[in-house]
This record gives sequence, C-alpha cells and structure tokens, in this order.
Amino acid sequence: MGFLDVKPKIYKPVAEVNLSPQSDETYSHADVKAPRMAGLFIKIFAWVLELRIVGAFVVEILKRNNRVHKLVSFAEVSESPLFTPSHASEEDYEEQQVHNVKHGSSPAERVQEAVYCLSKDAEITAIGDQDSGFRRWTIMDYSRAYISGETTPLSVAKRFLAAVKESSEPHLNMSFFISYDAEDILEQAKESTIRHERGTPISVLDGVLVAVKDEIDCMPYPTTGGTKWFHKVKISTEDAYIVKQLRSCGAILVGKTNMHEIGAGTSGINPHYGAVRNPYNIDKISGGSSSGSAAVVSAGLCPVALGVDGGGSVRIPASLCGVVGFKPTFGRVSHTGILPLNWTVGMAGVLAGTVEDALIIYATISGDLPLRQPSPSLVPATKFPLLASTNSIANIKLAKYGKWFNDSTDEVRSSCEHALDMLCKHYGWTTVEVTLPEIEEMRLAHYVTIASECASSLAPHFAKIDFSNVGWDVRVAHQVYRSFHSKEYLNAQKIRNRQMHFHKEIFKIADVIVTPTTGVTAYPLQRDTLNTGELDYINGAALVRFMIAGNFLGLPAVTIMVGCDKGGMPIGLQFIGRPWSEATLLHLAYGLQAICSKSSKRPMVFYDLLKKEEGTADQWGGNK
Amino acid sequence: MGFLDVKPKIYKPVAEVNLSPQSDETYSHADVKAPRMAGLFIKIFAWVLELRIVGAFVVEILKRNNRVHKLVSFAEVSESPLFTPSHASEEDYEEQQVHNVKHGSSPAERVQEAVYCLSKDAEITAIGDQDSGFRRWTIMDYSRAYISGETTPLSVAKRFLAAVKESSEPHLNMSFFISYDAEDILEQAKESTIRHERGTPISVLDGVLVAVKDEIDCMPYPTTGGTKWFHKVKISTEDAYIVKQLRSCGAILVGKTNMHEIGAGTSGINPHYGAVRNPYNIDKISGGSSSGSAAVVSAGLCPVALGVDGGGSVRIPASLCGVVGFKPTFGRVSHTGILPLNWTVGMAGVLAGTVEDALIIYATISGDLPLRQPSPSLVPATKFPLLASTNSIANIKLAKYGKWFNDSTDEVRSSCEHALDMLCKHYGWTTVEVTLPEIEEMRLAHYVTIASECASSLAPHFAKIDFSNVGWDVRVAHQVYRSFHSKEYLNAQKIRNRQMHFHKEIFKIADVIVTPTTGVTAYPLQRDTLNTGELDYINGAALVRFMIAGNFLGLPAVTIMVGCDKGGMPIGLQFIGRPWSEATLLHLAYGLQAICSKSSKRPMVFYDLLKKEEGTADQWGGNK
Repeated sequence: MGFLDVKPKIYKPVAEVNLSPQSDETYSHADVKAPRMAGLFIKIFAWVLELRIVGAFVVEILKRNNRVHKLVSFAEVSESPLFTPSHASEEDYEEQQVHNVKHGSSPAERVQEAVYCLSKDAEITAIGDQDSGFRRWTIMDYSRAYISGETTPLSVAKRFLAAVKESSEPHLNMSFFISYDAEDILEQAKESTIRHERGTPISVLDGVLVAVKDEIDCMPYPTTGGTKWFHKVKISTEDAYIVKQLRSCGAILVGKTNMHEIGAGTSGINPHYGAVRNPYNIDKISGGSSSGSAAVVSAGLCPVALGVDGGGSVRIPASLCGVVGFKPTFGRVSHTGILPLNWTVGMAGVLAGTVEDALIIYATISGDLPLRQPSPSLVPATKFPLLASTNSIANIKLAKYGKWFNDSTDEVRSSCEHALDMLCKHYGWTTVEVTLPEIEEMRLAHYVTIASECASSLAPHFAKIDFSNVGWDVRVAHQVYRSFHSKEYLNAQKIRNRQMHFHKEIFKIADVIVTPTTGVTAYPLQRDTLNTGELDYINGAALVRFMIAGNFLGLPAVTIMVGCDKGGMPIGLQFIGRPWSEATLLHLAYGLQAICSKSSKRPMVFYDLLKKEEGTADQWGGNK
Repeated sequence: MGFLDVKPKIYKPVAEVNLSPQSDETYSHADVKAPRMAGLFIKIFAWVLELRIVGAFVVEILKRNNRVHKLVSFAEVSESPLFTPSHASEEDYEEQQVHNVKHGSSPAERVQEAVYCLSKDAEITAIGDQDSGFRRWTIMDYSRAYISGETTPLSVAKRFLAAVKESSEPHLNMSFFISYDAEDILEQAKESTIRHERGTPISVLDGVLVAVKDEIDCMPYPTTGGTKWFHKVKISTEDAYIVKQLRSCGAILVGKTNMHEIGAGTSGINPHYGAVRNPYNIDKISGGSSSGSAAVVSAGLCPVALGVDGGGSVRIPASLCGVVGFKPTFGRVSHTGILPLNWTVGMAGVLAGTVEDALIIYATISGDLPLRQPSPSLVPATKFPLLASTNSIANIKLAKYGKWFNDSTDEVRSSCEHALDMLCKHYGWTTVEVTLPEIEEMRLAHYVTIASECASSLAPHFAKIDFSNVGWDVRVAHQVYRSFHSKEYLNAQKIRNRQMHFHKEIFKIADVIVTPTTGVTAYPLQRDTLNTGELDYINGAALVRFMIAGNFLGLPAVTIMVGCDKGGMPIGLQFIGRPWSEATLLHLAYGLQAICSKSSKRPMVFYDLLKKEEGTADQWGGNK
C-alpha cells in the first residue's frame, strides 16, 4: 500500500512547546479533503464504503488525505495516553462572587438558591439599551405571570401546542420535535395550574416548558437518538436522572426534540424526521446535533431545553440559532438515562434564552449526583455566581490565540472582536495573547475518539438492524468510525494528554479562553439534502473549530450571541473555562449578555407564549 | 468471511450477576487453541503472520478460535468502559495494626520507619521450626554484618561478582543479567564500605545489593527491555525515580537483570540474552517476564530486586523461583524512567527473599511521589504493617472461588489448600466461598488491553528497526498485538468495569482474595527454544490464570512460597488485596511466611554471600 505511506508527525515533548505569542508553533487550518455530498452521490459513496475490501481501502485513503494518518494514526507521541477528561476536585483557583450551594439540597432547593443569585436591579441591565433589543421570555417571566395569575401553565401549554402545530405546517416545516404528546403535556399543565391556583408552586420552574433532546430518556416518549431503530432495540422505561430533577421542580416536559441522527453531525439535517430549520431563516440549517433543542428555544417555544454536547452539539446549534449554550465540566451532571453513544467526550448541557435561565437549569440538574461511571474524579461542590454585579469580577484575563480566533469569516471575526473590545472597555478585563498549539491535531484526535466510541456503542445494534433504516450520511460516517485501530485510539489519547497540559498552562495565566463559537454562521439548507442527509466535512470542520477542548478535555464552556452577519444570522462568542469553574463562566457570560443585549434580534419564526391576548403586541416580542 | 462468524456473548447487567457460591455462573477454563511452537515452526509461523493479507486473516482465525471474538471483540456489554484501574483514595476500610508514615519523609527515613515495624521477637518466628527450614540472608542480616564489621560491602560485592561469573559459565549458564559493570559495582561498594567504616551508613540498605529489571533505567547501563534495539532508539540518561530512591538509601545497584523480551511472555526465555534458568532446577524455566530479578533473589545473589508486573511479571517468576513477589496498587509507585510498554496495567514491584525485605523496599520506593500520568486518583498516604504480631490481625476473611482455585495441578492445589488450612487453624482466619465470574473473559480483555497498549508503544520503533533483531515469539506476538481495533479495546475496558464492580462487591465481605499464584509450577526448558524463543500459550494461560486482577484492576497482590511439587519446584500462594491495602497485605503475607518457613528449601544453585569464609558451612545456607 505504498501510496498510503505517510510521513508521520513526530511530536516534541510538551515541555519544549512554547505557548507564548512568540511561539514558532504553526497554526494549521483544517484542510478537509472531502467534497460536499448529498442525493445520489452520497448513496453511491456509502455503497462503495460498505464493500468489504474496497471500502476499507477507500476509508484509509480518506484518513490519509485528511491527515489522520499523519497527525494521529502513525504519529510519534511520547506522552502517556489520558483516557478521560477527569479533573481533580481540588483546584487552587478561587472563584469570586460565588454562592456555595448547600450540600444535599434538592433540585427545587437549588433552584431557589439560583433565583437568590439572580440580579434584578444592578447596573448590568442598564448597559444595553433594553428597549432597543429583542428579548425572550425567561423562566422568571413565566413564573411571575403564573403567580400573578396573568396566565396559567395550561393556557401556555395550549399556545405551545398550537405553535408547534403551526411550525410543522408545510410553509414552515420546522421539524422541531421528533415526538410530543398533547395529552401528556396538557395533563402536566393542568397539574401545575392547580398547584399555582392553590398557591403552592414547587419552584419557579413550576409550569415552565422544557424540551428534551431525543437522546435523553423522558417519559412517555421513546428515545430514538434521531434514528428509526434505537427505541426498538433499547426501550426507555423511566426518565433520565436530569429529567427527573426537572420534573421534581414542576417543569412541564413538552417532548423530544429533533437531532442529527445519533449525533453524528453538526448540521441538524435528519433524513427521517426532517431538517431542523433555523428560526432566524428557515432556509438555513439550525446546527446540531442538539438542533431541535436550540431551535425551540430560539423560536420562543420554551425558555430552556436540554441537549448533549459530545463535539459541540449544544454550543454549535445555540450559536447558529442565537441562544445561550452551556456545557458544564465533564462529570458534573449525571448521564444516567442518556444514550451512551460515547463515554469520554459527551456531556449534557443547557440551551436557554438567557444566562439567568441557563443558571436555573444548571442549578436543577447539578448537585449531589450519582457519579458518571468513567469519571473517577470526585466532583466538587456546585457553586452559583452572584450575578448582582459584574464589576465585582475584577481583573478577568481572557486568553486569546489570534491565529485561531481569526480562522473564521470576516463577519464572525469582527462581531467577536467587537464584543471582546466592549468587554475590556466596560469591565476592565484584559486579553492575553497566547499560542494554543496543535488545534487541528486535537480536532482529529477527538474525531478518532468519538468515532471509535460511537462505533463501539453502536456495533451490537448495527449487527442486528436493517441498514436501510439508517441515514446515508450516518452510513458513511459509520464506515469511518469502525475503521479505527486501538493504536489510533491510544495515540488520540496521548494527544489528549498533551492538550490537557497545554490548557492547564494557559489557565495559569488566564481565567478563560475566548473564541468565536463557530467559524461560520448557519449555511443554506440545500434541497438535495432533505431525503438523504448531507456530508459537508468542510463546513463541519468550521463549525467544530472552537468546540473541541470543551469535549476532549471536559472543560466547561458557554456561548452567547454577540451579533449577526449581513444575512441576519446569529454569531456567537465562546468562553472556555477551567475545570469546575461553571460559576465564573456563567458570571462572565452574564456580563457579555448585558453588553450584547441591544444587538439581539427577533427571529423570523417566533412564538410569544406569554402575550396578553391574540393579536396584541407583546412587550418585547413585537415587531422590533 | 463466513467462517469467522461467531455468536458473541451477551453479558447480563452486573447487578444481575450472583457472586455467592450458589451462583449459576459457569467457570470457563482457558481453552487455548494454539500448539506449542519453537525452532523452525515458530519462524514459519511468524513469516505467515507477517504476510499482509494472509497474516491478518490468520490472526483473526486465532482470535476467533481462542474466543477473543466471542468474549471480547463482538461481545455485547452494556457497562461503560473503565480505562484505568484508578482508585479513589478514600476507602472506608480501616487497616489494623498499621504505622502511618510521616508525610514528606525521605526514602531513608521511610526505610527507618519500616525497620521500626519489623518484628524481631514475637511468636511469629516461633511458629515454623526455624532450624528445619532454609532461609535467605535478609537486608537486616547484611546491615548487621556490615555494622558489626563481620564483613564489608566491598567483600560482599566481590563475592557477588565471582558468583555471577560462575553462574554464567557453561555448566550453569543461568543468564541472570543482561548487563553488569564490575567496576561500577566495586566503586559503589567501596563508597558504602567507607561510610560503614566511618559509622555513618545512610540506612539499613547501605551496602545492600539490589538488582534491577532491564526495563527500568539504572545508570550506567542501557535499558534494553530484553531486546537488541530498544536502548539504541531510547537512550536512558538517568536513574528511574525508584532507582534514585534506592540509591539515596545507599543500596548498591548491581546491574540489569534478564527478562522476557519486551515483557511479552511469562517463560523468561530470551533468545538474545539466554533463557533465565530456575535456581531450583536449571533445566526449568524461571518464569517471567521479570525472570532475572526473581532468579537472582532465589539464588542468593541479592536479597531484593526490582521488577515490573503488567500481567503477573513479578509474581509469576517469584512463585516459580520460590521467592516473595509483591506488586503494589496501581499508581502507588512512580513509573518515571520505566519503559512505557503499557500504561494501564503495569506496575513496578518487588522481588525479595522475605516479606520483611519486601516491606523495606516498598518503604523505599513508595512515598510522596510524582504521580504516574494516567492515574488521576489521589494516592493516599503510605502505611506500613506493624509486624510484631499476626494474632493482632483478627477476623481476617479470605475470599476463595473454589472452581478457580482448583484449576491448577494437584500438587499446586494441595499445597495451597494446606497452607490455607494452616492459616485458618493457626490465626483463626476464615475462608469465604464466593463466585468470581468471567475470569476467562477478564484474561482475554486484559490481553486485548496490554497487547493494544504494547502495539501502540512499540509502533514508532518497529517502523524503524531491522525486524531481524526481534525474537521470533515477539514477532508472532506483535502481529496479534497490532491487530486490535478500537472497538475491541473499548469492549475490553467495559469488561474491566464489570470486574471492578465484582471485586468491589467481594471486598465488601472479605479482606483479601486467596488463590494459588500460578496454575502450574516451572516447566522444562526445551532445547529447541533457546535460539528462537517459544510460544506456549497453554502453559502461558496457566501461569497468568490468577494474575489478572492485580493488573487489570490495579489491585495490590503478594505471593509467598508455600511448598514444592514432587520435582522440588516451588509453589506459591497469592493474596489479592483491596486498593491501597498494601500494609494489610504484607501483614498477612508475613503471617503466611511464618507458617511456611519450615517447608522452604534451598535451591540447587545458591550463593551465600555472607558466609564467614570459603568452605565454611553457613548458618542457614548450608546443606539443609
């Protein structure tokens, strides 16, 4: 196989790698060698890859041409493998302005503590010109409306059902949900309404609508993982742990959101349940894989939704749909009842209209949890940010790797630069130029990892099911996923160890790493993709460009909308934090949100579930 | 590939597995389908496996026939993978009769503390009829002889050199060492002798001879790993951390012991440096891979030696050569400066003539260490056993899985049963019958793991070296090692998770697990193996039968000689302990040693380095 020969990269020892801005480490742009494919072409390609000998050969050529062989498979790495992104609980980092959550508190008690941490006065809200921006209804808005009697959970649930129905009609065809059960939703809403009538709501979440990615068990629905078969081979019998926590606070679970099939892509195009359309422009993708969860929040159907983020799957659609996406530290949240598609990179996360709402949901689903199996680390106590003032978070240092940051479209770059300037100007924060080496190497190592784990988790099922039930892009992906040798997996883990070292070094001189969330904004949904799905590894690489540390190293990360491109599509800025520093991260995100609120924009498709009556202009959701 | 098809095992969830003696879990004997090979046959076999397409096919047939496909590769396991045998430091197990070692103490200080813990009176020594047994000189014997002026380190070093020379002559051809430097040894001995003359020995280890497996860096020697090439591609430039610790106590490092090539086997037959011969019968194997380290202790050349145990590599040769083999908990000892042949199963260990000496060396090399990379767990403080009385360790419960225990030769079984009876009778300990399920599955999962890791660590080197420098058995092994897919590796880690669960459950009702150390005693060295090495997976499986939990789950374990077979070859009994329970384990081993001391036996090849003068009968080393 002479033409598969490749000169492998010989990594120098980590101690010799210079992380300063003067480093001679080169920045490698993702040089993807795979044409966009859909329609008939993707079918032919899948058939070729599924030929036993020829297919294996073509896969190796793909891996070679895309530098997997050079940078991972055959590379020489002297570091030991690091298999899980587990972090020791004792960190010397002292978080400022935090509220220590009571040990052993219930989800409802934690929600109460989170509400205590929310600012309701303060200079924050004064930064942006509130009236000039668009703002989604928050959990607190719903709670106040229920408590005041202005509306009821039942009334909101009915509006929700009408809205979902409308959004599913041919002129919109949003494909938000894989399943929702009107009867079940109304039943929950009635019970919540009764609690409110009696003046005994369980928490501010009582009666609040929450959607759940169809990768997370939630009764009475099957868990499809975006497939036509998963729910048949793996029957879900009870709520996932995090869904139980939400339910115990009185939240109304409104159904299972659409997602990229088995989370194997970032476009959100699902050939079985439809391509989730972006509420800001229904001819564009929503991003994925938690596509439906991001889109329903963006479109105002729920203030919050749950997603799972194994390679940016919460943050990418959040960014593309203009909402907040928040992924906690690996091990912080229970994965009991979430499809085990992978074990060392995925983490449940929150999609929300605002940082405050992300905090409330984080409060609900974190806490004293049954530890996730592969994480032997001891999870430290949860802390919440005291959001009353961002000025109290002094001297924040934002690490920025210029070459990486700038590897994005002009509009993304300038919006993100502008937001960063505002942050520094307004709060006195400073950026620290650094070099984060081997970004492209990390992307490929993460790919080898998530692909291998996904192949392992799917293998017993794929041995049994009818393959014609599987989408074409997943069929292609699966042939690549299953190609990896243990040697490639182990080399990827060695690269994980290197990156953990680099990031720990960066966090010695900075509080967070700042990046655009994605390299590109939402791109057009092409007609040929709708039935077959699409392979677009070039756009895919641009979408995951800034995601990987959050998954491969288990670091907490959050994305906030900071602007729009000329076509009106949202642009996100991301903060990547130290392990277990969720409180600080949310606090910084809150500061950023305050600055950017006036540049936020109403989506093309938006439902105002709290409006006073039909046809009346609402407070914020109007024609601004 | 229809005839490779196999019906994969579907593992039931761990919670449904019954661990009681009434369990319906079947015990699977290792049913190895691979004939013994040496000489021309092994060469032909290696050539076939090295054919690109045919070789890969034959390897898969081997994996199929040996149930790797059924039990690991294609198995359905619902548990998550567990990648490293890391243990949380807080265990609720309260060890009795332990000495807490001072935090931050130096190796010499820890040695002093260990000496404090040694019994010198007490009922222990009275159990066995001391005069009827054979006993090797201990560290304390050497120390007393040096301090009293009876002899000097220099004199002992000279005797050592003469003995090594004799042992290398054609009539013995023991092949103990890969390298030793007379000048360097004499220089160290002179310095130690001067310290003793001045009355300022550093510790009881000052002037004591210690041999080091040639997998551990030790100046001024190259580290070959038993190969002809490793030292050329990876230059060792300083002592390994554990060697530094020994040197800082005044120990004399006497050279690098022979080993199975890259640790890839358990026979100790090395085609490049000779087959290490068993001091009890030079026509039999020593066991491996730390073959030389076990044999030099057995033959009286050193009271102690260092080994590394990735699949029983300390305990197997210890058992076959009739010495103590002790492997601490994964993560307890620094691996800096040890060849990184694997990352998740190997652990440095101690070979010693007595439990007391194992304790002293354990004291030297444990302590406040730079943590081993892949272990994110926090290593708890080291504790030493207070050996003054074994009666003070009351109510010890020894878990025994009868079907497994009895899967050994009649002589091994009856010796081990006898020792166990004595322990129960003398100390009032009790055995608890249990079922430890999936023993054979664990052996294969461990094999997939160590093989994959070894393939990964060797790949960059094997891409460069001349393959004719590699032994035939390693060439065969390598073709299997490199065959594993990431899916197989991940499935093996899922099985690791299951076993961790099972073992934790067993440790809820028992203090240690007791097994024979090996299923067979040392078998004959056949003439056809000497130049080519040997493949004997049947005997290999019998040798590793009881080893795997120590490596795959990182549990501490110790082996003690409890008898001999009819041919006079040693038989060992093994205790496997809870994580971090080294103190208890050594205490129990000490009790066992006391009982078995009178049945110990002088090896055929034995050097008495402390004898008063040439030709004079020594105290214990005489013709008993």
